[in-house]
Amino acid sequence: MFDRLCIIGVGLIGGSIARTARQRNLVKHITGFGRIEDEPNLQTAKELQVVDDYSLDIATAVQHVDCVIIATPVAAMEGVLLQLKPFWSEQVIYSDVGSVKNSVVTAAERIFGQVPDNLILAHPIAGAEQSGVLASMDQLFVNKRLIITPLENSRSDAVIAIDNFWQQLGSVVYMMDVQHHDSVFAATSHLPHILAFALVNMLGHRDEQSDIFKYAAGGFKDFTRIASSDPTMWRDICGTNKHEIIPLLEQLKGELSRIQHLLEIDDLQQLFETFAYAKNARQRFLDQFEN
Amino acid sequence: MFDRLCIIGVGLIGGSIARTARQRNLVKHITGFGRIEDEPNLQTAKELQVVDDYSLDIATAVQHVDCVIIATPVAAMEGVLLQLKPFWSEQVIYSDVGSVKNSVVTAAERIFGQVPDNLILAHPIAGAEQSGVLASMDQLFVNKRLIITPLENSRSDAVIAIDNFWQQLGSVVYMMDVQHHDSVFAATSHLPHILAFALVNMLGHRDEQSDIFKYAAGGFKDFTRIASSDPTMWRDICGTNKHEIIPLLEQLKGELSRIQHLLEIDDLQQLFETFAYAKNARQRFLDQFEN
Repeated sequence: MFDRLCIIGVGLIGGSIARTARQRNLVKHITGFGRIEDEPNLQTAKELQVVDDYSLDIATAVQHVDCVIIATPVAAMEGVLLQLKPFWSEQVIYSDVGSVKNSVVTAAERIFGQVPDNLILAHPIAGAEQSGVLASMDQLFVNKRLIITPLENSRSDAVIAIDNFWQQLGSVVYMMDVQHHDSVFAATSHLPHILAFALVNMLGHRDEQSDIFKYAAGGFKDFTRIASSDPTMWRDICGTNKHEIIPLLEQLKGELSRIQHLLEIDDLQQLFETFAYAKNARQRFLDQFEN
Repeated sequence: MFDRLCIIGVGLIGGSIARTARQRNLVKHITGFGRIEDEPNLQTAKELQVVDDYSLDIATAVQHVDCVIIATPVAAMEGVLLQLKPFWSEQVIYSDVGSVKNSVVTAAERIFGQVPDNLILAHPIAGAEQSGVLASMDQLFVNKRLIITPLENSRSDAVIAIDNFWQQLGSVVYMMDVQHHDSVFAATSHLPHILAFALVNMLGHRDEQSDIFKYAAGGFKDFTRIASSDPTMWRDICGTNKHEIIPLLEQLKGELSRIQHLLEIDDLQQLFETFAYAKNARQRFLDQFEN
């Protein structure tokens, strides 16, 4: 598909793209790029043959490539685009993997005036709690959803190329507009992460005073799994998508107050209906998730 | 261990006790008891040889038994104790499996004046989303924690018998006082269930307006697993332990407001510290859970 691919940020996602692209013969050559402090990770990526080579110099890293995938944390996007600007080429297709899209649009507008027509925003719905190239794997995207958020000026050949690339990585590709994307993922991903972090933060302090985790069961383990996610990554995601997240936090606190009120007035019938509605709604999610 | 065991409520928990007790030769004969509307389930239990027989008449069900385990939902406990009262025997050991303990103490006090010294309160930390005898299994309690909450007047021979019985069912037995039990499980079990129900309830309504579940990932699946739990059972647990749960809901809303404020003022450092503390606290839980 591409002759020479440059991956900026060879972590869990960037490394998994490289491994899969190589395994499926989608590219001939892969170069990694990172900051000086990323060099040990890039060195590992090279030793594992996840990338063919790497550079800490952006000019060298993007020379002669025909695709650049930016797989850094969302908060680093603006800095990366700024570094790329002097070498930006109409011959190259650029894409990213960020969990928040509006912030990338804003960053690109600040740097380029408008989002370049060959920068195609994409978001693979796949991940793991672990990070770094050692956690990367060649099956991460198989049968997972990938969202492309094309803009009005996006070049259609570039959208098609990124769409094909991800399909060949094993993903199921959907198109969505930027605003809808950020709203959907605030609800189904960012808010649940904040909730898990908030709950475990609160209970962790209680556990320090009197053992409570000792008696927690498998339900608690599953419920809190996402609280083991990378705090830097989630700080950045929540910070960049806060305008979507804050109204949801308000709404959720309202819902918790409503349930609290039902408990206070012993309205067990309404409590039952709330729980039963949730159980049915989750079944609707499961039916879609498994298909 | 016991010659004749009566299980009141042959569902997931009651059925699993029966299966395991039989498989491990802990009892010679098992009788099931339930209400008229439970007869199809009791019939199934008999066909599956989970119980030897069953009765819908309490006098018949408890005749000649030396142990009665009450495995009904917590809200049904008072009614069951009331039915048992005329046949209560000093020769028999009584126990339960409820997730809330103070409400059982209160119910027993209302009926008997004080909690009978041969009624030993116990709570297996095991379960599944499914309910009914068909969901029961003989490995449900293996290496799972079981809490006994002995009272000051509890007969020590009865406490020891119930302790031994559960150890032989495969559980690891802990002793705890009633108040501590209800406080610990409000935090690690009841509050997470309410959160999961509240979130899925809120997002379910949003999903009805515009597809959002379609794009939710594995993290959402794990996070919301407990929202598929039985709404009747959880209505009862939350209703009976509301005095412990309500202050926790207040505290959690406060924690969510604090995080919301950090987002509003862009205090990403504090946000990071909250998430990092939670990640570490969960690791502390995992280290204990896996040992």
